Amino acid sequence: MLTPLLSTDQLDRIVVVLVGARNPLNIGAAARAMSNFGFLQLRIVNRYQLAFREARSAVGAPRLLRDALECADVPEAVADCSLVVGTTAAGSRRIEHPLHSIEPGAQRIRSHIASGAPAALLFGSEKRGLSNADIGHCHWLMRIPTREEHSSMNLGQAVAVCLYELIRTEAAPETADTAAPATGAELTRMERALLEALRLSGYTKPGAQAATEEKARKLLRRMTLSSEDAETWTGMLAKMQLRPRKDRRA
Amino acid sequence: MLTPLLSTDQLDRIVVVLVGARNPLNIGAAARAMSNFGFLQLRIVNRYQLAFREARSAVGAPRLLRDALECADVPEAVADCSLVVGTTAAGSRRIEHPLHSIEPGAQRIRSHIASGAPAALLFGSEKRGLSNADIGHCHWLMRIPTREEHSSMNLGQAVAVCLYELIRTEAAPETADTAAPATGAELTRMERALLEALRLSGYTKPGAQAATEEKARKLLRRMTLSSEDAETWTGMLAKMQLRPRKDRRA
Repeated sequence: MLTPLLSTDQLDRIVVVLVGARNPLNIGAAARAMSNFGFLQLRIVNRYQLAFREARSAVGAPRLLRDALECADVPEAVADCSLVVGTTAAGSRRIEHPLHSIEPGAQRIRSHIASGAPAALLFGSEKRGLSNADIGHCHWLMRIPTREEHSSMNLGQAVAVCLYELIRTEAAPETADTAAPATGAELTRMERALLEALRLSGYTKPGAQAATEEKARKLLRRMTLSSEDAETWTGMLAKMQLRPRKDRRA
Repeated sequence: MLTPLLSTDQLDRIVVVLVGARNPLNIGAAARAMSNFGFLQLRIVNRYQLAFREARSAVGAPRLLRDALECADVPEAVADCSLVVGTTAAGSRRIEHPLHSIEPGAQRIRSHIASGAPAALLFGSEKRGLSNADIGHCHWLMRIPTREEHSSMNLGQAVAVCLYELIRTEAAPETADTAAPATGAELTRMERALLEALRLSGYTKPGAQAATEEKARKLLRRMTLSSEDAETWTGMLAKMQLRPRKDRRA
């Protein structure tokens, strides 16, 4: 249906690292978003022996959560990665680190893993984000374009948005409005049925027949009708001409 | 820092509608993502008197949540919106509705609101997404490119990804058609007039009322109708209900 931008191999080369998350539900939610978008490598830097393996929020992704790697610190979590990217919600204190917004950032990550080398995407704790020590392990930072007045995102939502950006396709195919558009003949049939129903109902004023015809013709052409829909309308309008007396309103 | 793609005015013209969400934490999470990306108009279609106003997950967005509008049903929630877009996680059963992937879909929404008319973005319940009845009120559907093997997203994450896509791109919005598109309330009026005319004409088969309603609803949303044209149709259809006996064909 959709042409994947990243192959399964490439998706496997992107490692999501949650550093110091405190709420198991957020870890589960991150796992769910990863699974939704096809990423399977989760690593948890967990200093608190957090019980996250059974988090109910990992709907549809319990195995991903069970298979997540627990690491003592960031260096261990990114040991096999040749690119380490930290995520952030702006803030000037980190300005000394290269900062890319998420679109060009995701493009850089895709280019990197195309070369065969794994990359890590780091997310910090719910309260404080990544610490300066964590950021020290990053090659650069990626920023989600939240408002400055309210920049701090929910962890699971931040993961979802970043992963979405990584798999977002450039020219995603639309389901073509596959329905064939109505032909001139079909519109003419519908127009005739409409005009007849209008005439019978007394809508068409005496002497204004030509004006009503023109009005109806334009009205129909402004609508974007499929063949099938034009036929449905024609059938409905034809039926309205035949309404039996007994059903009339007072 | 970032050049906003949408002005505050335009952001205010995008209404997020959560239909049948069961978990207040998800509603709060949706509010938080809205606030992160600058969207403030939240409406809740809620048949269960859900206590969501104080959801703790709306970190940084308690006011947005307090100001959210509660609506009895989808027509009420989209009454002032001239574009209604449903979000979905694929599935073939809805293939009869136009389906756009999220990128071109977001582009369409931006073009629409550039013309000044509000648009609604509908998200269904956690378990089932949007029902067929809900989808009947949509002009088209937008699909997030999740994996087919695990397509169902967390509600808050789906909202975050869609809103991110709406504010993401640098590209300038296309100029829109000049005629004001019909609002939800206008389409509902036209729909009522059509259904009444169909009922009186005997088109609606006994026992098939619900099916005819759904058919008519979809038919109307597939057409691109301006405000003015919807009103013309409503007037014509109302008149057809009142056709006097003497004008009947043999």
